[in-house]
Amino acid sequence: MKTITRRDFLGKGAMLAGGAYPAMLALGMLRAAPAHAFDLAGSGNGKHVIILGGGLTGMTSAYELAKLGYKCTILEARQRAGGRCWSIRNGATNIEAGQPGQTGETTQKASFDAGLYFNAGPSRIPHNHELSLHYCKELGIPIQVYNNVNEGAYYFAEGNGPLSNKKIRVREIHNDIRGYMSELLAKSIDHSALDTGLTKEDTEKVIEYLMAEGGLDPDKLYKASARRGYTEYPGAGDKPGKIADAYKLADIINSGLMDPDFYNVAEYTYELQMTMFQAVGGMDQIAIALEKKVAPMLKMGAEVTQITNLPEGVKITYKDASGMHELQGDLCICTLPLPVLSNINQNFSGEVSRAIDYISYMQTGKIGMQFKRRFWEEDEHLYGGITHTNNDLTQIFYPSNDYLSKKGTLIGYYNFNEKAARIGDLSFADREKFALEKGRLIHPQYDKEFESAFSISWHKTKYNLGGWAVYTNDTRKNQYPVLLKPEKQVYFAGEHLTYLNAWMAGAFESARSVVTAIHARVTDQRVTYPATGATNK
Amino acid sequence: MKTITRRDFLGKGAMLAGGAYPAMLALGMLRAAPAHAFDLAGSGNGKHVIILGGGLTGMTSAYELAKLGYKCTILEARQRAGGRCWSIRNGATNIEAGQPGQTGETTQKASFDAGLYFNAGPSRIPHNHELSLHYCKELGIPIQVYNNVNEGAYYFAEGNGPLSNKKIRVREIHNDIRGYMSELLAKSIDHSALDTGLTKEDTEKVIEYLMAEGGLDPDKLYKASARRGYTEYPGAGDKPGKIADAYKLADIINSGLMDPDFYNVAEYTYELQMTMFQAVGGMDQIAIALEKKVAPMLKMGAEVTQITNLPEGVKITYKDASGMHELQGDLCICTLPLPVLSNINQNFSGEVSRAIDYISYMQTGKIGMQFKRRFWEEDEHLYGGITHTNNDLTQIFYPSNDYLSKKGTLIGYYNFNEKAARIGDLSFADREKFALEKGRLIHPQYDKEFESAFSISWHKTKYNLGGWAVYTNDTRKNQYPVLLKPEKQVYFAGEHLTYLNAWMAGAFESARSVVTAIHARVTDQRVTYPATGATNK
Repeated sequence: MKTITRRDFLGKGAMLAGGAYPAMLALGMLRAAPAHAFDLAGSGNGKHVIILGGGLTGMTSAYELAKLGYKCTILEARQRAGGRCWSIRNGATNIEAGQPGQTGETTQKASFDAGLYFNAGPSRIPHNHELSLHYCKELGIPIQVYNNVNEGAYYFAEGNGPLSNKKIRVREIHNDIRGYMSELLAKSIDHSALDTGLTKEDTEKVIEYLMAEGGLDPDKLYKASARRGYTEYPGAGDKPGKIADAYKLADIINSGLMDPDFYNVAEYTYELQMTMFQAVGGMDQIAIALEKKVAPMLKMGAEVTQITNLPEGVKITYKDASGMHELQGDLCICTLPLPVLSNINQNFSGEVSRAIDYISYMQTGKIGMQFKRRFWEEDEHLYGGITHTNNDLTQIFYPSNDYLSKKGTLIGYYNFNEKAARIGDLSFADREKFALEKGRLIHPQYDKEFESAFSISWHKTKYNLGGWAVYTNDTRKNQYPVLLKPEKQVYFAGEHLTYLNAWMAGAFESARSVVTAIHARVTDQRVTYPATGATNK
Repeated sequence: MKTITRRDFLGKGAMLAGGAYPAMLALGMLRAAPAHAFDLAGSGNGKHVIILGGGLTGMTSAYELAKLGYKCTILEARQRAGGRCWSIRNGATNIEAGQPGQTGETTQKASFDAGLYFNAGPSRIPHNHELSLHYCKELGIPIQVYNNVNEGAYYFAEGNGPLSNKKIRVREIHNDIRGYMSELLAKSIDHSALDTGLTKEDTEKVIEYLMAEGGLDPDKLYKASARRGYTEYPGAGDKPGKIADAYKLADIINSGLMDPDFYNVAEYTYELQMTMFQAVGGMDQIAIALEKKVAPMLKMGAEVTQITNLPEGVKITYKDASGMHELQGDLCICTLPLPVLSNINQNFSGEVSRAIDYISYMQTGKIGMQFKRRFWEEDEHLYGGITHTNNDLTQIFYPSNDYLSKKGTLIGYYNFNEKAARIGDLSFADREKFALEKGRLIHPQYDKEFESAFSISWHKTKYNLGGWAVYTNDTRKNQYPVLLKPEKQVYFAGEHLTYLNAWMAGAFESARSVVTAIHARVTDQRVTYPATGATNK
């Protein structure tokens, strides 16, 4: 079998486009797995690539293109880079659209103590997102565990059923449900009421398993166990501890604690399974480290107003504090969120324009709240993790860093869809009031300990207009492939052009994918776009 | 109602003994919950308390007694304090009994790179162990998450059934079993084969829950989902990812993956639920910080040979490098592990001597292994957590610290009972050989990356002779209470005199309990021992 060399491969018309990077990887063209350095052959020979948007995708693209010998210019509308990868610290400002019925914009400024922050955008790195961890390593950013699973956090069902308005530890509900479900299934198998499709011996093993899994008693009944917690803790001497009673299954159901608001499945989701990570000192450390790498290429305060494909090359019109400017380059990478791009003049095809307009984005919001002391740790031994509610708060995130320190910030709500729309439509002051009113039902300490808050509604935020791309089966099938191929000299990139929507890994994967496609074109490879079968020449 | 003052309480014959601390707490005698500073009234007036054993219980007792005005002397047989709270670093030595059939002792010395270590004893702090976290805070020891739950670690069934000798991610088995069990129960309920004791409406909610919990398809069948992982990862462009197939339930059962070796219940156990912690830089930081507090009271290399109750006071005979010595004090706290105490001369009652002899201890061992690189992270994106096996390794613990750094140590086995007995009976070299042979079945990188190892067999270790106290119903009922009351001037303390066996919290709770009892006696309160109804005067 003839050995295929790197140059053979690059010279022989392989499929290179959005999918080129994995294909090259499969053929051993890259040094190693995606978790390792990006290693393409050949030079960009100073070709000028204009990159729209200084978020993670834009900066990573510039960083990798520069390594390959390209000239890059990044146009970033804001006075900061990083996009959604943003930790709110003292003095941070955000511009949002005004309240419904109001015209104009409204600006909020954060007032937190030095060293305190919250991650307004991505706050978690899944352990299986290799590129996110790769760039942390390559850029020298230390990581720490993000404690996504905490059995000591709460479920709180407001105004619903016999367990309403009670702070119930997650461990209580998890173990009660596990116990009751195991009991029901063991009973069903025991009474030969169910054809398991298993041998008698295997069925007996399933029953033994269920007894352990559910913590059942020798009669195969669930009665509560130490797993769900104590009313008196075990201790020294004559303190064996006193196990708390289980909740009744009917009460759990009738308070909605088996409803979607409280499903465990978030913790089972591939991306949300432990181990999860965060950057030490705030997720913005990733953006800041990238910014240092691309600083000479980065134009801040440069708001793109028009994208024009020329017969050769591309012309970008933008405005900054000094007025309107035009910039010409060989190629363009457009990482702008689609709802933003939708309002920018361009000479794209109708098909591309439609795709930009049709793909929808998540409505989502968060509020970061600073407290005088970490009462959730000190009073409630609750360290990290998430409290779930059935009200518009949806969830409260406790910080996974600086445990046992004095002050702290928590995320007082993190909501989606219509809940985020309702809260996003409130004024900044009313969002804070809402977070305090609902939060104090769970943590009455809010009253005494609260210091300040900063909220963000991503779908109302200037230059974002959405949390992340949300595909329907229809838009994934019909609009998504349209944006995977370049529109003449303009390549689209970002988490919205991946199957990793909402994740930083989407930004990194997209950046590598678009850099691979551009580099194949510049080094004169024929590129076939899988979605359509079209080629670049 | 008359207000009870602290002095009234201390003066009026309340029940004060092992259980005194919680009782005082309940009456508001202490400033706050156990997670806060220990705050007893009155002075020890220089009474001399001799403390046998410089582990966590002994040092914490001295630390708290000294705050109350006692004079303390801690006798520690080793040249280091901390007892089982010990992180193995370069140069650490341990003395164990020789191999079976050999007489004499055998000493091992650790050879690790600077900055690398493993926790030979306790490695985890449960979030609900308030005193452990309290002392970390009081002593200024930073903590970080111990990642006890990692869905990316492995299950490895050696030589058993159709899935034998396969590295199976925990997520695959967890989600497959969850799926099949949910499918079986949904089917059973659907066919009205089971009386759930619930209304029809509630039963429908249970079925909806099971569909979400198990990741079932619309026909309520489990077919695999993204939760269990991919054969091709989702990425940018045309990479939706390819979901891996589920294992067959019969195959899972027949490879023993529903047997006790692989039960999930460890993660459900009250003490092992997330959130868990460890001390940053090694668990020995707790011992080191305590040692600094009690350094002037600590006599190292002082091996106790005799404990003698005098008509008043107590006399301790010990030997050190300079010979035999006698030390007299007013009271004594004996924290020596019972298998060690069992071999020391004393003039205790027959009942006390019997209790010391009868209570059994865990056989347990660990091996720490240093590798040139963190292949488990770099090659397998496995960060922290535990791999479970059905062989004598039992488990492999990956480090929950210094993620993404170059070298690392993992715990190559951590076993118990007969497995620990078998491996403990091997020479140090043969234990290493065993860990390498079995470990490379899971991680073939062992061959290339291994550098050095250090093993400990706690039941063979001089001055320990066991991992921790293991009570049967019988010894808990008949022997345990005997040691809760002082034998004249001698008080017994340690994790073995709590319901928190094996945990550092047991040491701290026991220390507070014994300090409370001693202080009540010295400040002239009548003490009643709950176990027997006897009083101290």
